[in-house]
Amino acid sequence: MNFSSKLLENAVAEFAKLPGVGQKTALRLVLHLLNQDKQEVEQFSKTISKLRNEIQFCSICHNISDQSVCEICSSHKRDHSLICVVEDTRDVMAIENTNQYNGVYHVLGGLISPMDGIGPSDLQVDTLVERLKANETKEIIFALSATMEGDTTLFYLHKRVKNFNITISTIARGIAFGGELEYVDEITLGRSIATRVPYENSLTK
Amino acid sequence: MNFSSKLLENAVAEFAKLPGVGQKTALRLVLHLLNQDKQEVEQFSKTISKLRNEIQFCSICHNISDQSVCEICSSHKRDHSLICVVEDTRDVMAIENTNQYNGVYHVLGGLISPMDGIGPSDLQVDTLVERLKANETKEIIFALSATMEGDTTLFYLHKRVKNFNITISTIARGIAFGGELEYVDEITLGRSIATRVPYENSLTK
Repeated sequence: MNFSSKLLENAVAEFAKLPGVGQKTALRLVLHLLNQDKQEVEQFSKTISKLRNEIQFCSICHNISDQSVCEICSSHKRDHSLICVVEDTRDVMAIENTNQYNGVYHVLGGLISPMDGIGPSDLQVDTLVERLKANETKEIIFALSATMEGDTTLFYLHKRVKNFNITISTIARGIAFGGELEYVDEITLGRSIATRVPYENSLTK
Repeated sequence: MNFSSKLLENAVAEFAKLPGVGQKTALRLVLHLLNQDKQEVEQFSKTISKLRNEIQFCSICHNISDQSVCEICSSHKRDHSLICVVEDTRDVMAIENTNQYNGVYHVLGGLISPMDGIGPSDLQVDTLVERLKANETKEIIFALSATMEGDTTLFYLHKRVKNFNITISTIARGIAFGGELEYVDEITLGRSIATRVPYENSLTK
């Protein structure tokens, strides 16, 4: 593109680095910002800079936090003997939104993905093992995506934690509530028959 | 959404103000920035703030510029007797990319849109009339979108400039090059027959 201003070009280039944002979208966003008050744009810019500089990761569960120990880990109302292992902070938010979970979390910070060069050492795996060694955990729940990377990570983590005297679970896979059988993919449907559960267990409490 | 950090929540709220960016997309962008080096995020933030604070608008054509007079308006290679009137800087970029135009521009900064509360006084209309009064213009080309707002603006501008002794043109409307007749909408096709041109004129030079 042929920019009339270097400042404009730089700003578009910065926005275009964001995932899913191309040159045209970046230009649209930048022109939108140009139409805003100086004050608002200053606030936008400051908020982002502040986020990156002041954000902390909870020293226990490694979730994004404003303090060195996050609200969930420091809460006395949560069951600290139950650890739910998730990929990132979005999963914590999704599970928290269900209001069905009262334990604590462990945020891996990603999934094992040899294609992207992410190995176990890039994730918070050792810190998870350390937490289990403290001997306060009764159950660990793996809530990872049902993808190749998720399954690889699950397999690796299971190997690392299976010798601890704790219950190891994964979240249930199967047909979503409200899902119609004819539209479900074959693997999910086949597995949900193979891993069928007693009727009593399927009732929501 | 249930954010684990106020800093995160603020940053997501700022991103979600951008057009076409919802809460989920905003969160994805913010988490992407969190994964970047501090230095890169600082640069992102500074570039935006700098853009808004240092950007100028050309005092002649009102296009976005780094100087008080833009490169096009200060160029001796351009035909200053030919003014192309456009909505915003994106249109200037689009026309410049064609390499078919050697005149100068006049950027209105929007289109008349009573629905959005944008009237003629919000646009650079008076400055356009001033430019014409300087008596150096031979032709004015209106290159506005073929929308309700574009047509309204065109109608108003024509009323304002028709008494000057200059040629007034609009960009040609019709079937796009490479367009197949059966897929063209009826209005465009009907108008393109009604406003047919002599064969010789249709040849690209």
